[in-house]
Amino acid sequence: MEETQTNVRLYAFEKLRELAANILLKAGFTPEDARVGSNVLLAADLRGIDSHGVARIPGYLRLLEAGRANATPDIKIVHETPGTGVVDGDKGLGLLSGPYAMKLAMEKAGNVGTGWVAVRNSNHFGIAAYHAMMALEEDMIGVAMTNASPIVSPTFSKSRLLGTNPICFAIPAGKQPPFVMDMATTTAANGKLEILQRKNEKAPLGWMQDKEGRPTDDPCIISKGGALLPLGGDRIHGSHKGYGLGAVVDILSGVLSGANYGPWVPPFVAFLNPLDNLVGEGIGHFFGAIRVDAFRSADEFKKHMDNWITTFRKADTIPGEKEVLIPGDPERITEEKRRKNGIPLLDPVVENLKKIANDFDIPFSF
Amino acid sequence: MEETQTNVRLYAFEKLRELAANILLKAGFTPEDARVGSNVLLAADLRGIDSHGVARIPGYLRLLEAGRANATPDIKIVHETPGTGVVDGDKGLGLLSGPYAMKLAMEKAGNVGTGWVAVRNSNHFGIAAYHAMMALEEDMIGVAMTNASPIVSPTFSKSRLLGTNPICFAIPAGKQPPFVMDMATTTAANGKLEILQRKNEKAPLGWMQDKEGRPTDDPCIISKGGALLPLGGDRIHGSHKGYGLGAVVDILSGVLSGANYGPWVPPFVAFLNPLDNLVGEGIGHFFGAIRVDAFRSADEFKKHMDNWITTFRKADTIPGEKEVLIPGDPERITEEKRRKNGIPLLDPVVENLKKIANDFDIPFSF
Repeated sequence: MEETQTNVRLYAFEKLRELAANILLKAGFTPEDARVGSNVLLAADLRGIDSHGVARIPGYLRLLEAGRANATPDIKIVHETPGTGVVDGDKGLGLLSGPYAMKLAMEKAGNVGTGWVAVRNSNHFGIAAYHAMMALEEDMIGVAMTNASPIVSPTFSKSRLLGTNPICFAIPAGKQPPFVMDMATTTAANGKLEILQRKNEKAPLGWMQDKEGRPTDDPCIISKGGALLPLGGDRIHGSHKGYGLGAVVDILSGVLSGANYGPWVPPFVAFLNPLDNLVGEGIGHFFGAIRVDAFRSADEFKKHMDNWITTFRKADTIPGEKEVLIPGDPERITEEKRRKNGIPLLDPVVENLKKIANDFDIPFSF
Repeated sequence: MEETQTNVRLYAFEKLRELAANILLKAGFTPEDARVGSNVLLAADLRGIDSHGVARIPGYLRLLEAGRANATPDIKIVHETPGTGVVDGDKGLGLLSGPYAMKLAMEKAGNVGTGWVAVRNSNHFGIAAYHAMMALEEDMIGVAMTNASPIVSPTFSKSRLLGTNPICFAIPAGKQPPFVMDMATTTAANGKLEILQRKNEKAPLGWMQDKEGRPTDDPCIISKGGALLPLGGDRIHGSHKGYGLGAVVDILSGVLSGANYGPWVPPFVAFLNPLDNLVGEGIGHFFGAIRVDAFRSADEFKKHMDNWITTFRKADTIPGEKEVLIPGDPERITEEKRRKNGIPLLDPVVENLKKIANDFDIPFSF
């Protein structure tokens, strides 16, 4: 994400979070839910995942207006064992059921070493990293994943059967910042396409195919029946592995929880209707918490993680590159900058928020 | 794996397993360990992962002869909670500590819903799928991963810091065969390079780089200081994701267990010495068992898995492809053929086994 574009204005983090919370309140959220939801959204804006932050508020509101999402969900545990749980999100946003389920996973990890919680009957949960990183504060490894609207084709197929199905691992370190891998299981996340669309640029081959399954560099191909490709891009470069990973995320999030899966995952956009013959409830997520000291002392582990991180960071680089990055480095650096300088928002995003604030009679003062 | 090459002879599965067990016995294994070890090896040969089957016996023997591996390990639990455990492999082969740890994970899953076991002080464990698939018989999802000799460079690096670090998920179904994803976290597994070397063919770009970090199509580049590339191949095609996945496998297998990690993972080949300043003991593995009915009834889950599998299998194909595959399909089809017709072995592999049988005074009768 380039921060140097001159046509992008910066907005103070705290004020933007307050605006998001006020909007959610007016949309019917309880004050506590508005606080949690706005935290999850702003985490995306801070970390540079601009497609998953306040820019997505209008989309969430349309889901609520269409009755596809519930502003006051009664989120509850419907099944549990000492180390596992299934949570029903009551058609609320995953912005809320995510933190609820992650807390439950951490509680269970406290008791038996690890905790794993599947969520059904949910909607989009923001960035996976927010949820997984909750575990870091208690010296746990956090895991978060979700299925999503089907816009990805399995290897050899032209059908859209999977979402970008992200998976995140957040692993604590000692003096070093934590290791945070948060990745779509596709070659490129959908947000990358949006950037190219705005710039009117072509995409690299290996990211997408057209509706006949032919390679394409058209970043608008999804709206023309095309599909994103699993990580690997094509069979010879391992796309069956990206497909397999996306499938595992779909099965743990959807099949294990009792949510929809595959082509039945309801679309995020409110103007597209879910299929008639649904196989589960809403979309699904899967969370895990692994207590480090259920394996070895947390101090020992974190000392070795520091060694792991510094070893990789100082590795020799290929020509043209300055430094080997640790997963989570780019997002952390972006967060540091944006907390200080503000969050860059595109004018259309700001216009949408201004209109919502106006409709809801909320002050919009930047 | 082409089975139709005329210069490859077929060897009966049961006799080959007996030969492998006899060799392990003569190498000092107990009868029970020889049985388990030969089962793990032959599972690779049956499933078409030829690099991990009997072809690897000479390599294991050299590790034992060099004192780098222990034929009679006292494998034991050194730390545990209700849902987790750490196993010390006592320098034995992972062929033995793998099934031991996986059984422990399944026991714990029986008690608290899931079980997770990290193994340190181990050696190569054969194919990940053998271990993960143990869980299927008890309606559990099996997870297996391991770190390995460093021959993979992280994105932007020319240093070799990771192994091909495979990860396997085995997921039970009902009437359909199980879903079994067993993948190296690199674009291509090392075994693929061996095939190209034998055929004297070039590799696709995106699989490897030379010792300066430049793209190369030379399948012998590893022996010249080059490296395999993480799944994705280059940054623009998502290699940072393959790097992140390989790193997670390394951290769960190595850092969490107290084994070596990153560049310190001891080389599989006995003619290369481990580094002096080791950071742990041996190589590390990580196993998980997830009891399906800790989330929803196993019957319900398996019915939906059948639906998942048939939906994906019957999806529309791209031009030139006949069918969408489910992870595990190619290996299962190979196993069916090889159980019936025999296992194809290359002449050099057979010559090596014959020589070992002769040295050990074991009958070699095919």
